Amino acid sequence: MTTPVIAIHGGAGTISRNSLTAEEEARYHEALAAIVGAGQAVLNAGGSALEAVTEAVRLLEDCPLFNAGHGAVYTSEGKHELDACVMSGADLASGAVACVTNVRNPVLAARAVMEKSEHVLLVGAGAEAFAARNGVATVGPEYFHTDARHEQWLRVRGQSRAMLDHDAASFVFAHKDAPAGVAEKAPIDPDNKFGTVGAVALDRFGNLAAATSTGGITNKQPGRVGDSPLIGAGCYANNATAAVSATGTGEAFMRTVACHDVGARMAYAGNTLEQAAQAVVFQQLPKVGGRGGLIALDAQGNLALPFNTEGMYRAYGRGELAPVTAIYAAQA
Amino acid sequence: MTTPVIAIHGGAGTISRNSLTAEEEARYHEALAAIVGAGQAVLNAGGSALEAVTEAVRLLEDCPLFNAGHGAVYTSEGKHELDACVMSGADLASGAVACVTNVRNPVLAARAVMEKSEHVLLVGAGAEAFAARNGVATVGPEYFHTDARHEQWLRVRGQSRAMLDHDAASFVFAHKDAPAGVAEKAPIDPDNKFGTVGAVALDRFGNLAAATSTGGITNKQPGRVGDSPLIGAGCYANNATAAVSATGTGEAFMRTVACHDVGARMAYAGNTLEQAAQAVVFQQLPKVGGRGGLIALDAQGNLALPFNTEGMYRAYGRGELAPVTAIYAAQA
Repeated sequence: MTTPVIAIHGGAGTISRNSLTAEEEARYHEALAAIVGAGQAVLNAGGSALEAVTEAVRLLEDCPLFNAGHGAVYTSEGKHELDACVMSGADLASGAVACVTNVRNPVLAARAVMEKSEHVLLVGAGAEAFAARNGVATVGPEYFHTDARHEQWLRVRGQSRAMLDHDAASFVFAHKDAPAGVAEKAPIDPDNKFGTVGAVALDRFGNLAAATSTGGITNKQPGRVGDSPLIGAGCYANNATAAVSATGTGEAFMRTVACHDVGARMAYAGNTLEQAAQAVVFQQLPKVGGRGGLIALDAQGNLALPFNTEGMYRAYGRGELAPVTAIYAAQA
Repeated sequence: MTTPVIAIHGGAGTISRNSLTAEEEARYHEALAAIVGAGQAVLNAGGSALEAVTEAVRLLEDCPLFNAGHGAVYTSEGKHELDACVMSGADLASGAVACVTNVRNPVLAARAVMEKSEHVLLVGAGAEAFAARNGVATVGPEYFHTDARHEQWLRVRGQSRAMLDHDAASFVFAHKDAPAGVAEKAPIDPDNKFGTVGAVALDRFGNLAAATSTGGITNKQPGRVGDSPLIGAGCYANNATAAVSATGTGEAFMRTVACHDVGARMAYAGNTLEQAAQAVVFQQLPKVGGRGGLIALDAQGNLALPFNTEGMYRAYGRGELAPVTAIYAAQA
């Protein structure tokens, strides 16, 4: 039987100019380790890759440190529009939702679309109605609120920026559950973070799966859909090649069909997983100004976590081994 | 200078069991010839491939014979939700809209997203607001109505079908502008037609472009988005490989990222355009139950128009040569 593997990411971006204490960084490492550990537990108990990536992304959505679910960024109208996607490498079954505003865990809605509809992508009110009909938990808009994201939106809105491509002031992130007055800085500058979360997994049966979820970009135009919920752009899984989840400047990943391109280079050019992932992140994406990274895993358990930004929140775990977490390049 | 080429499609599907008169078929051939001729005129006057595919798809949207724009199918709620996409092969610039209900020509909204926003895909009310702000003509829902599509919806709804995969009764199509009492049958059974329109073009400068537009599938769930507006799934253009526009069971084209796969097979496997297009339509798509076809054009002017259904409305024109139109396989 195959040794199960899971990897996750929590977004890529530039590093804040302000130096951080080890304690501040530790919060991110702890969250990543706990979530990848939960995914490992699913796999080690005999769960499928599909179940593991769904659970890992659900936990990433629930964690306010990451831009998905609770803790998602604000649109230009001061709302939250969430996107998610899940794909099974065994049969290319796929489900996705985009522009949903009241689904607590968009990845669970995506899973429901995959398993309970004849469609792949549902958007907006239609997606919300489908989710509610299929027992996916809904919440009011206040659920997605975090003081930190709201302040980030007010700051970005004041600068009339939607796409963020330069360094910004340091960011103080207040935990929802933190005692009053306790805040922390984020290692990766949130104003320059391409906030997406994702997971890829290989189960003991040799099946791959991938999932991606996002709140999009701060101050985004209502109705903007990025790469995250799109098969081939921000999420892809095929047992014959790889499971891939991306994070970055979404439009560039859409134009290059980045995640499918990783698989295509393996299938048709004979690239290894590492070669294919590197080519997409360091050659293809930069041609259209694409910044970010991706996590990729093949059916032999090979893993590639390349990014062309200064950092990418990421972690992986193999079998029963302790999770490995990293933020900056040197730690990879 | 390159000899310009343009090809268009108006959907694929099964052939109605009822035999048709030559006169009935002629209406489709005439519409296809007129529209591809208009695209040729753009190219022959020095227009770009992007301009030619936009104009051809705009005319296909305006023609009530095809399922896009005026003449689009009805959702399960008795409304119209339209999707479109456009992509430039020179720089991979892309624009798309999905689930718009009041944009007269969705392809023009997609073009505006490409040229006047920093995004690639806008959906729903956000897309409509963007279109209106950018001077794209809007219309009331009655604009999209045709008696034929409405009757088709009532018939399909009565059978509780959304995805259509078997033969159905013959279809009498009433032209909006036809004298009272004059109706015609459609050569391809509209109840089993995968209604999409699209165009691919090569201009005298050697640039490729593709565009796709659809009303989706009759009686579809609100919020359902198919492959048409998604880069790589139902539309793709890259000067290095091909311009591709697809029509068929959208979900299968999404799961196989069909249009990008044509390009990937050319780029990485060394396939010719014909080999790549045939592999996708006759090998890859059938693995996930995919039915339909695509039109593909490379920068050398090679053209492939494969489909795995009984027919696909299609046409092409090279330089100043008369347009060639076809519906069934034997006429290809």
